[in-house]
Amino acid sequence: MTQVAETSLHRVVIVGGGFGGLYAAKSLRRSPVQVTLIDRRNFHLFQPLLYQVATGSLSPADISSPLRGILSKCRNTSVLMDEVIDIDPQQQIVKMQEQDIAYDSLIVATGVSHHYFGNDQWKATAPGLKTVEDALEMRRRIFVAFEAAEKELDPEKRQAWLTFVIVGGGPTGVELAGAIADLAFKTLKKDFRSIDTTEAKILLLEGMDRLLPPYPPDLSEKAAIALTKLGVTVRTKTMVTNIEDNTVTAKQGDHVEHIPACTILWAAGIKASGMGQTLADCTGASLDRVGRVIVEPDLSIAGHPNIFVIGDLANFLHQGEKPLPGVAPVAVQEGKYIAKLITERLRGNTLPPFHYEEVGNLAVIGQNEAVADLGFVKLSGFLAWFVWIFAHIYYLIEFDNKLVVMIQWGWSYFTRNRGARLITGENLPIPVEASSKDDGRSPLERKAPVEV
Amino acid sequence: MTQVAETSLHRVVIVGGGFGGLYAAKSLRRSPVQVTLIDRRNFHLFQPLLYQVATGSLSPADISSPLRGILSKCRNTSVLMDEVIDIDPQQQIVKMQEQDIAYDSLIVATGVSHHYFGNDQWKATAPGLKTVEDALEMRRRIFVAFEAAEKELDPEKRQAWLTFVIVGGGPTGVELAGAIADLAFKTLKKDFRSIDTTEAKILLLEGMDRLLPPYPPDLSEKAAIALTKLGVTVRTKTMVTNIEDNTVTAKQGDHVEHIPACTILWAAGIKASGMGQTLADCTGASLDRVGRVIVEPDLSIAGHPNIFVIGDLANFLHQGEKPLPGVAPVAVQEGKYIAKLITERLRGNTLPPFHYEEVGNLAVIGQNEAVADLGFVKLSGFLAWFVWIFAHIYYLIEFDNKLVVMIQWGWSYFTRNRGARLITGENLPIPVEASSKDDGRSPLERKAPVEV
Repeated sequence: MTQVAETSLHRVVIVGGGFGGLYAAKSLRRSPVQVTLIDRRNFHLFQPLLYQVATGSLSPADISSPLRGILSKCRNTSVLMDEVIDIDPQQQIVKMQEQDIAYDSLIVATGVSHHYFGNDQWKATAPGLKTVEDALEMRRRIFVAFEAAEKELDPEKRQAWLTFVIVGGGPTGVELAGAIADLAFKTLKKDFRSIDTTEAKILLLEGMDRLLPPYPPDLSEKAAIALTKLGVTVRTKTMVTNIEDNTVTAKQGDHVEHIPACTILWAAGIKASGMGQTLADCTGASLDRVGRVIVEPDLSIAGHPNIFVIGDLANFLHQGEKPLPGVAPVAVQEGKYIAKLITERLRGNTLPPFHYEEVGNLAVIGQNEAVADLGFVKLSGFLAWFVWIFAHIYYLIEFDNKLVVMIQWGWSYFTRNRGARLITGENLPIPVEASSKDDGRSPLERKAPVEV
Repeated sequence: MTQVAETSLHRVVIVGGGFGGLYAAKSLRRSPVQVTLIDRRNFHLFQPLLYQVATGSLSPADISSPLRGILSKCRNTSVLMDEVIDIDPQQQIVKMQEQDIAYDSLIVATGVSHHYFGNDQWKATAPGLKTVEDALEMRRRIFVAFEAAEKELDPEKRQAWLTFVIVGGGPTGVELAGAIADLAFKTLKKDFRSIDTTEAKILLLEGMDRLLPPYPPDLSEKAAIALTKLGVTVRTKTMVTNIEDNTVTAKQGDHVEHIPACTILWAAGIKASGMGQTLADCTGASLDRVGRVIVEPDLSIAGHPNIFVIGDLANFLHQGEKPLPGVAPVAVQEGKYIAKLITERLRGNTLPPFHYEEVGNLAVIGQNEAVADLGFVKLSGFLAWFVWIFAHIYYLIEFDNKLVVMIQWGWSYFTRNRGARLITGENLPIPVEASSKDDGRSPLERKAPVEV
């Protein structure tokens, strides 16, 4: 069935409730338009902090806000929890499973997912980090690994349980490695009786010649030094060639190494969401190597001035050089620009092309430790960490009460406590591999007083 | 393989990390014993607040604490994440899948689960509330129901999506009904565009002649009045005879009613955990009607003075009358008593039988509204709610930093916001039943300005 809303108002349909979609909707609040925001989920996810859920510092709800709640005061906006399956640019219709919605302007902001460079079989062993479910699965694996190590009697197997390999040295990989080091070397230190959690090995593997490749080289170096100090083994120029049977095969030049590890986390590649291909099929839009839509200077698709792509899904050539990175500030500015563009067009005006205002790059490494490139100044250490905290609180507060996150952080800061380290899920939390060899002693006896 | 720890210390094995097991372990901290606490989960769950997770006010981690964290300062205590499958009282051994542990004293505190009175097929349609996963499933269903109603065009189906039936008028049922009423009539009021959430029907069905049967009758009446005021339909003397195809069949005297409802929540029966039967098989312990172990005046099993059952799993005749209720204060006092008993026995002393110090009964109904029976005084309304808040914070703080919960509550109190209303899980969050009849108008148009 096709349903074309008959209304005198200009109809804006936004697909995706991430930073781009949400800021577009919010910025259209006072414009004479009728907005429908469609998302498969009922909440906006603050992805920059997802690694803190994966490592047991925050709960999913701490970094999520219900879309209806955020937009309840935008009286011209409806939220629809549904999945878009196709677009018809001729009829100007967005198609879902059970209904269609007509648009005058369409904004697509469905983001990216992770990508295994053609090795999709690695996914089961090495989960990525894009959704709440991904984060909970990482959290489950990390904490199960310590539990399994505590029960394991075979020293080799125990070391495999205590080995954490993070593939990819971008911001997510750096943040994960730092947080797991904090966990193993500080938070969990006194919690186990059989194992010494400080024997954990945390390896961060990066294919390029330095961590955080898009950042200035001196910040990359500072990040590597800080991580090493935290206890992380950083390996650059290292390609992962296989992941199988709890073993990572890594190649550094001619040197091939097999690393036994029960916890392998993927922070390497990205791939555009399926809407990129859908748009290419129906509009003839060009896609880049990872499937992102190449957009015009006004973020529209060539030949379709009323279809816009923003956020991580868009490939926008910044200053004619390279595409803008997939970070929140880019999506936010793009969302606001489109809202303004649509409003001005309704008044018969035009706008100059989109221009991204640099706000800098940030990556947190651990407690009191981050790197920041703010354009006019490069920071590292405590000062960068301080900037990082404030930048994140600023964005969180914009959406919702995230006072709670501040309190959590404040508390964790002084206590090094991580309250959210729960192993949850439908499956029995004890992994099958955690079998103990019979050496006649229970793992609990190894440190208990033993009389023979 | 059988592993018997050789140690000069008296070995106490505790099965279950709920209130009973945890307080037993904590109270044994300074005794000359070696304690092993075994739990399938790695965290203690503060069950009295589970309904707040189910209704989107709190996150699982807010009401959970990692067992290792709570016990990290009890240096004589080891935590083992594992599942007990059998007990051998002759050899004094607790058996798990891959290892055995020897005990001198055994404390079993594995609690209860919910029970469908022989209608286990109802479980899929009417989930209960005992675990974190249960609570997240309830949360998913409640919020999916509102989303589905928003998209539903058929008025009958829409009403079924907006009908919430809670089976069982004990504290959990009362708390769930009150919280869902708060959600529908206050929190979500401005969030939807097509439906009016205040058209939601919330039915609380209780088989007995009044709510909260173990409480004094005047408090039951006050609870019913307060719930009715909140918008809940309370039906007592009402038996559920069938749950099928999103329909509850309820019988009140001779009157049989079929209630179409997409969200049916089970808060009716309890059944002892499987360890009850295990103990009966290996020790000859007597079980009551719901499978709880009937214990001696010192909480041991008859003929087995070193095996104790505490908490919800125990049936302890209070003052020779009726069994103690399955509430946290009972389990806490029992855990402390056993710790003291074991310590005194090691000194060659005995203790008088266990005596429960009444601390009262509490049930919260909604914001500012609760009932409390403190023995010397009965409270309702705001005062009871205040007592409830403080009683819960007291216990939460005992375990961990739950300052955050206080802040959450404080914030929700003034804003009526519920930040944790996420629909999560691996399944596509859109239910199949949410199909729309084709009336030629999209659900979004129903309230949108329409020009024909």
